[in-house]
Amino acid sequence: MLGEFEGAALNIFHLPKIALYIAGNPMTTPPPPVVNGSDMHALMARLFPVNRSLTGDGVRLTLRVIGEHLPGLTLHEVASGTRALDWLVPDEWNVRDAYIQNGAGQRVVDFQAHTLHLVGYSEPVDRLMSLEELQSHLFSLPDQLDAIPYVTSYYRRFWGFCLSHRQRQALTEQNYRVVIDATLAPGYLTYADLRIPGRSKQEIFISSYVCHPSMANNELSGPALLTALGQWLAGRDNRYSYRLVLAPESIGPIVYMSQHLEEMKRRTIAAFNLTCVGDERAVSLMPSRQGNTLTDRAARHVLRHMAPEHRVYDFYQDRGSDERQYCSPGADLPMVSIMRSRYGDYPEYHTSLDDLTVATPAGLQRSLELHQAAIETIERNETLCAGIVGEPHLARRGMDFNLGGGVGVAAARKQAQDLMAWSDGSRDLIDTADAMGMSLLELLPVVDLLKQQELLIPCAHSE
Amino acid sequence: MLGEFEGAALNIFHLPKIALYIAGNPMTTPPPPVVNGSDMHALMARLFPVNRSLTGDGVRLTLRVIGEHLPGLTLHEVASGTRALDWLVPDEWNVRDAYIQNGAGQRVVDFQAHTLHLVGYSEPVDRLMSLEELQSHLFSLPDQLDAIPYVTSYYRRFWGFCLSHRQRQALTEQNYRVVIDATLAPGYLTYADLRIPGRSKQEIFISSYVCHPSMANNELSGPALLTALGQWLAGRDNRYSYRLVLAPESIGPIVYMSQHLEEMKRRTIAAFNLTCVGDERAVSLMPSRQGNTLTDRAARHVLRHMAPEHRVYDFYQDRGSDERQYCSPGADLPMVSIMRSRYGDYPEYHTSLDDLTVATPAGLQRSLELHQAAIETIERNETLCAGIVGEPHLARRGMDFNLGGGVGVAAARKQAQDLMAWSDGSRDLIDTADAMGMSLLELLPVVDLLKQQELLIPCAHSE
Amino acid sequence: MLGEFEGAALNIFHLPKIALYIAGNPMTTPPPPVVNGSDMHALMARLFPVNRSLTGDGVRLTLRVIGEHLPGLTLHEVASGTRALDWLVPDEWNVRDAYIQNGAGQRVVDFQAHTLHLVGYSEPVDRLMSLEELQSHLFSLPDQLDAIPYVTSYYRRFWGFCLSHRQRQALTEQNYRVVIDATLAPGYLTYADLRIPGRSKQEIFISSYVCHPSMANNELSGPALLTALGQWLAGRDNRYSYRLVLAPESIGPIVYMSQHLEEMKRRTIAAFNLTCVGDERAVSLMPSRQGNTLTDRAARHVLRHMAPEHRVYDFYQDRGSDERQYCSPGADLPMVSIMRSRYGDYPEYHTSLDDLTVATPAGLQRSLELHQAAIETIERNETLCAGIVGEPHLARRGMDFNLGGGVGVAAARKQAQDLMAWSDGSRDLIDTADAMGMSLLELLPVVDLLKQQELLIPCAHSE
Repeated sequence: MLGEFEGAALNIFHLPKIALYIAGNPMTTPPPPVVNGSDMHALMARLFPVNRSLTGDGVRLTLRVIGEHLPGLTLHEVASGTRALDWLVPDEWNVRDAYIQNGAGQRVVDFQAHTLHLVGYSEPVDRLMSLEELQSHLFSLPDQLDAIPYVTSYYRRFWGFCLSHRQRQALTEQNYRVVIDATLAPGYLTYADLRIPGRSKQEIFISSYVCHPSMANNELSGPALLTALGQWLAGRDNRYSYRLVLAPESIGPIVYMSQHLEEMKRRTIAAFNLTCVGDERAVSLMPSRQGNTLTDRAARHVLRHMAPEHRVYDFYQDRGSDERQYCSPGADLPMVSIMRSRYGDYPEYHTSLDDLTVATPAGLQRSLELHQAAIETIERNETLCAGIVGEPHLARRGMDFNLGGGVGVAAARKQAQDLMAWSDGSRDLIDTADAMGMSLLELLPVVDLLKQQELLIPCAHSE
Repeated sequence: MLGEFEGAALNIFHLPKIALYIAGNPMTTPPPPVVNGSDMHALMARLFPVNRSLTGDGVRLTLRVIGEHLPGLTLHEVASGTRALDWLVPDEWNVRDAYIQNGAGQRVVDFQAHTLHLVGYSEPVDRLMSLEELQSHLFSLPDQLDAIPYVTSYYRRFWGFCLSHRQRQALTEQNYRVVIDATLAPGYLTYADLRIPGRSKQEIFISSYVCHPSMANNELSGPALLTALGQWLAGRDNRYSYRLVLAPESIGPIVYMSQHLEEMKRRTIAAFNLTCVGDERAVSLMPSRQGNTLTDRAARHVLRHMAPEHRVYDFYQDRGSDERQYCSPGADLPMVSIMRSRYGDYPEYHTSLDDLTVATPAGLQRSLELHQAAIETIERNETLCAGIVGEPHLARRGMDFNLGGGVGVAAARKQAQDLMAWSDGSRDLIDTADAMGMSLLELLPVVDLLKQQELLIPCAHSE
Repeated sequence: MLGEFEGAALNIFHLPKIALYIAGNPMTTPPPPVVNGSDMHALMARLFPVNRSLTGDGVRLTLRVIGEHLPGLTLHEVASGTRALDWLVPDEWNVRDAYIQNGAGQRVVDFQAHTLHLVGYSEPVDRLMSLEELQSHLFSLPDQLDAIPYVTSYYRRFWGFCLSHRQRQALTEQNYRVVIDATLAPGYLTYADLRIPGRSKQEIFISSYVCHPSMANNELSGPALLTALGQWLAGRDNRYSYRLVLAPESIGPIVYMSQHLEEMKRRTIAAFNLTCVGDERAVSLMPSRQGNTLTDRAARHVLRHMAPEHRVYDFYQDRGSDERQYCSPGADLPMVSIMRSRYGDYPEYHTSLDDLTVATPAGLQRSLELHQAAIETIERNETLCAGIVGEPHLARRGMDFNLGGGVGVAAARKQAQDLMAWSDGSRDLIDTADAMGMSLLELLPVVDLLKQQELLIPCAHSE
C-alpha cells in the first residue's frame, strides 16, 4: 500500500511496473534530478506505461511521481457531478483488466500489452459475441497498418477496443469473449498545482495536461518539461511568482478556472501551455487569442533569435489544446504554446507510434532552453527611461564598455547610445531589442551597466 | 384634370402617354406590385417618356406614379428663391413644346420625339435664324453619331437643342424657326419622402434622385429600386426605421438637409444612395467619405461574398452623385452607393443610348438582392459576448447542430466554437464573419442557436 | 585690435587673412547680402581659413563675421568646468602656430598651410624626436593619398599632426622638431543665438554648428545656410517666432539646452538642423527620433514634391549630428535635417578634400529653396473646416476660379471641391495636400480664395 492521496486511494493492481518502481524509491531517497533533456526523457519512460484518462488512479500515480521531483506539488480531488463553469465533472474511470479472447482462450487484444487498446472511458462488459457484432466496437487505421489509434468516449456511454489494422485483419469468424473489468462511477477528478513565490505577487502561469495514456510527444513531453522548469525555477530567486498546474485536458482547465479564475486574472502576466515539446522536427508557436500579450511578444522575440525557422499558427484556425479554455473570452489569460511538432501535424499523433522514439532527449532539451529563454526574457523585461537629457559624457564617467562575452568595445558603446536613444518610456526592453535587431538577453550586459550608472532608470510614470 | 398636388397643379399637356396611363388607373385600382427586376423594369418603362428636371411637373408626375406603389410617400414643395444651406432654390421650369422647324415647315428637331432634344432649363424662344447662328445653340457628339447628348444649363440663362451628330450633319444652310414654348419662372421644387417605422428610432436612409429626363441606368433604375425596397421593407417587421427620399440631384439633398439634417444626424446609422443600378456589366461600390462606417462595412461584406468581382471607387477621386452633399463635412452621413456600371464609366452615360435596353430586369434584380442583403446584414448585425467562460459543454446541453440548410453538423459545431472564441465584445458580427471568412447571413442559424442557449448574449457594456 | 567680445578678447595673430578682411570692413559699411547660393558660397570662402574647434578665437571670429549679416546675433561665453546636463565644459584651446621641422629647418608639416594639419585640441609641445617616435602622433589615409584627415582628441590629452599619406611617405629617417604653440587652459566656450519674433510665441528652431576647421560641406555650408535663412526671415512678417543657434557640435547643444530647454520644449513646434547642405550629389532627410512630428511631415511633404529622388535615413542607425542631443529622450525636440550628401556618405567627408569645390553655389541654392519651402509649408499649415454643409453654390457666389499661375479654371474648381470635402477637421493642410497628391504651396491660391469666401474657416475645436 502506497499511502493515501487526498480524497481517493490509489489502486495499482493494473500498474505493476511503475508501482514496483515507486515501491523501490521511498520518499526518503532523494528523487533523481530533472534538469536536462535526458532526465526528462527518463521521467517520460517511467510514466509511459501508466493508463491515464480524465480521471482515475493512473492520473494520481502520474502526479505523485512528478511530485517526487517537485516538492510542494499538491494533488486536489473534485467530486464527480460538481458543476464547473458550463461543465459537470464526469464519473471516475478505473480499469483492472480488459481483453478480447478468442475461442482458443487466447487474448487477441490485451490492455495489459498497451493501454491504447482500450477506448477511453469504456464501460464494463463481459460478453460473448460474433466477430460481426464485435466489429462495431473496434477501431483501427487502414492507412497506418501497425498503429493502434487513440479513441475515447468520455461523455457518451460506450465500450470499444483499438487495434492495429494488421491485427484486425487477422481476426477470424468466431465467437469472442469481450471483457472490460473497469469501474465507471462517481468518484473524483484529480489535478495538481504548485506555487513558487517570487519577489512580486504577479504570476507566470505554466500548465500542462495529464490525461492521455501511453503517448509521448502529445502528453508526457509536457509534464516532463513542466517538471524540469519547476526544478529550475524553485532553485532561483525569481522576480515573478509561478503557478504550475497539471490537470486533464479541457475539463481540467474548466475545473481549475472554476476555483481560481479571479485570482489568476488579477495576477497572471504571462502563461505557457506545455504541449508537444518532445520531438526534433519543428519549432512552432500557438499565439494567444489576443495575439499581442507580453507572453506572445516574449515568445516571438525568443523564437526570432533562437529558432528563426519556427512556424506561427493561427489561434482561431489551429487551436486545439488548453488555450481553448484559458484564452476563452472572459478568461482572457495571456497563454501561448511554444511547441515542436504541433498536435495533428505529425504522423504518429494520437496513435501508439507516438512513443519514446518520437520524443527525444535532444528535442526536449531544446524545448527546455526555449522556455527558459522566454521566461528569462519576461523576468528581465522592463520599461526604462534615460536618466539624463542628451547623450552621456562617457569620458567623464570613465565608462570603458569592456564587458567581455565577446562584445567589442565599439559595439557595446553603440548599443549603449542606442539604448539611451530608444528609452523614452514608450517601449519595453523586448520592443527596444526588437527595434535594435538584437535579443533582450544579449543586451542585458549593457543594460546592467547603464542601470548601474543611473543612465537608465525606472520611468516616472510607467507601469 | 388629374387633381391637385401640394402647392402646384400638374400640367400634363406635354405628357400624353403617361397621363393616359394614369387616367386609366384611378387610385381605386390596386397598383401593380414592384417586387422583382421585371416589375422594376416595367415601372421604368412607364416613367421613361416623362420630361424630368430640377423642378417642374415631370418631377411631380414621376413622384406621383411611384407613390401609387408606396402608400405614404409624401410630396413636398419648396418655393423658388428659398435659401437652403449655401444654395437658393431655382425657378421652376416647364415645357409645353419645343422644336426646330425648317423652311419647309418640318420639325427637324422635336422635343416631342425625345425629351433629350431640349437643353435642360432652356429659356423660352421663338425666332427665325440662320444655320450659322443656330450652331452655337446645338450640341452633338462627333464620336457617337446616333446618340443625343444630355445637356443642362440650370444656373446660367441659355437655350439650346441636343441632337445626334448624324442629324446635325444633315442640316442644310437655310433659315430655321426655333420654338421653345416653356416657362422658367418662380414656382416650386418638388421632392418626396416616406418614413417606415421600425422597433428602433435609429434609421437607415435610402435616397435616389429624380431630375434626369428620359434615361434609364442613370436615373430611373434608382427610383425603381427605391420603390421595390420600399415595398419590401413596408411588408416586414424591421429593427430599424427607414427614411426614403426622392429629390432632384444636388439641389434636392441640399434642400432636404436644410430641413432635416439635425434629425438625420441623430438617427441615421446607415445610408444608401441608389444610382446606376440597372445594367448587367459591373458591380461597384462608392464608399462613404469616412470610408469605414457601418454602411461601408456592410456593403463591402456583402459584395465580398455576393459579388467578389466588384470594383471599389475612391470617394475623393470618383464621387459624383448625392454622396457629394450627404457625405460632406458637417453632414457626415454614412452613405454608400452599391452600383452596377457607375455614372461616367459606361458608353451610353448621359445620352439617349442610356435607354431601357441598357437597364435590364436581370440587372435590376441583382441590385435588389445586393441591397436586400446589405440591409439585412445591418438589421442583424450586433455585438455579442460569450455568455460563459471556457467552451460550452455541448454534450450536457444536448446541442446537436443539426441546423439543416446544407450545413453539416461538424461544420456547424466548428462555427459555434469559433463564434464563442471571437465574441469577446471587441467586434460585431460583420467583423466576426469577416474574420471567419463567412458572410453574416450564412452564420445566422448558428448565431440564433447560441443566442437561444444564452451562450451568446448582449455584452454588458457594448453599444 | 578688433574690439571686445563678451567675456573674452579675440586673438587674431594666427588669422591673418580673415582679420585683414574684417579690418577692411568696419561695421559702418553695410554687410554684403547673403540671399542666394553665390552669396552663401562667398561667405563660406571668407570663413574657410579660420581654425575652428569646440572653443577658441576661431569660433568667436566665425560667429562675429556671421553676425555682420544677422543683426542681433548675440555671442555667449560659458566658462570651462561649467556643468551642463551630463557634461562639463572643456578647457579653451587656441593655437598660435604648429609645425614639424626637419633637420634642414624646413617645415614639412605646417598648420599655417592648412588648419587640418593639427589634431584638434592638441596640447602644447616643443621637442626633438626621431621619425619612429613621431609616427605614433601622425595620421594619414592610405586609401586617399592626397587627403589630410580630420582628427580631434577633445577629452583625452594628446598631440598629433595630420598629413596626406603622400607627405608621410616622403618623410625620411632623421630627427624632427615638433612645435605646437597653443594654449589649452580654462577659458570659455562660445555660442551665438538670435531670436526673430513672429506673431506667435511658438517657435521654429534652426540650428547649425561651428567647430570644424577648414571644411566646406560638413561645416560651413550649415552656418552659411543659417545666415541666408536668417536674412530671409528677418525681412518677412512671420506667423511663428524663430530661434537661430550656432554652437559647437554635441557640447554646444548640451550647453544650450542646459540653459534653455524648458522654454524650448514649451515653444518649439518645428526644428531644423543645418548640416551638409552644400554639395549637388544628393538630397536626403534625417527624420526626428519620433519620426512623425510636424517638421518631419513638412520636410517629407516638400521633398516628395521638390526632390522626389531624396533618400530618407533611419534615425537610430544613421544619426550623427546635433539631433543626437536635441532629439534625445527628455529633450524630444522635433528636429530633422534636410541634407545634400550626409556626413559619412561622401568620399571627401572629414578630410581636406571637403573644400569649396565640393560645396557649390548651386548646391547651396537648392538647399536654401528646400528649407524655405519647408518653413513656408509650416507657416501656412493649418487645420481648416468647411464653413458650410454641402457643396458651395459656386454660381450664386460668382466664384470664377480664374486664379492665374497656370492653374486652369476646371482644375481650380476641382481643387476647391476636394478641399471642401477633405476639410472635416481631422487633417491639416499638409495631410490634405498629401491626400490630393499636391503640395501645400501649390494649393494655397485656392485655399486663400475659399478662406476669403469663408467656405474654409478655423475649426471650432481644433488646435
